[in-house]
Amino acid sequence: MSPDRLSKVFAALADPTRREILAQLSRGVRSVTELAEPHDMSLPAISKHLRVLENSGLIARGRDAQWRPCRIQAAPLKEAVDWIGQYKRHWEESLDRLDDYLQELQAKQKASPGGKRSAAANR
Amino acid sequence: MSPDRLSKVFAALADPTRREILAQLSRGVRSVTELAEPHDMSLPAISKHLRVLENSGLIARGRDAQWRPCRIQAAPLKEAVDWIGQYKRHWEESLDRLDDYLQELQAKQKASPGGKRSAAANR
Repeated sequence: MSPDRLSKVFAALADPTRREILAQLSRGVRSVTELAEPHDMSLPAISKHLRVLENSGLIARGRDAQWRPCRIQAAPLKEAVDWIGQYKRHWEESLDRLDDYLQELQAKQKASPGGKRSAAANR
Repeated sequence: MSPDRLSKVFAALADPTRREILAQLSRGVRSVTELAEPHDMSLPAISKHLRVLENSGLIARGRDAQWRPCRIQAAPLKEAVDWIGQYKRHWEESLDRLDDYLQELQAKQKASPGGKRSAAANR
């Protein structure tokens, strides 16, 4: 995926309404009217969000002029996940550090005066 | 993660320079000057990108006024991956459909007159 394409995918995801539309489409094909229903938004506003999603490749729309049903196209999401996945080691390390810190904190608490009983309980 | 926070993370990722900065920081702590080096950009332009990254929680900066080193904070990336991960079934299905289509195409090719040679070449 080109850097530009990946930017479009992340930009499309950077809006709660667009993420909600993807959630709606994950349950099946929907018309614009159906997609607009749960949102407090005009059809033109929803259509604008749909254009952003379509432009990023995350949805496709039927060519029927009367009823242009929308459906999810999830392949670009895999590429976004693969890109973020490069950093897995970093978030795992930060979670490990947090875990170490909490254990250290707990150990200190148990070692503090009056903490003898809990220190023994720790073993 | 609140919808707003997740939007900030995706918006921060929706730019190739900011993604490149994360890649630089994945190799260790860097100063603004070091981060600016490989980019054809002014320090103020890089600083603007750093503010977006900092605001999304993806990087943290030291408090030393002279040298404010940047480091990656990858925890929000895990939450972004978890959000996208909800759609795994969808991209797997679309890849399966593509696979089925390619196999069908190949089978048709083998069955067509003169298709024997290309089928053999395919192995």
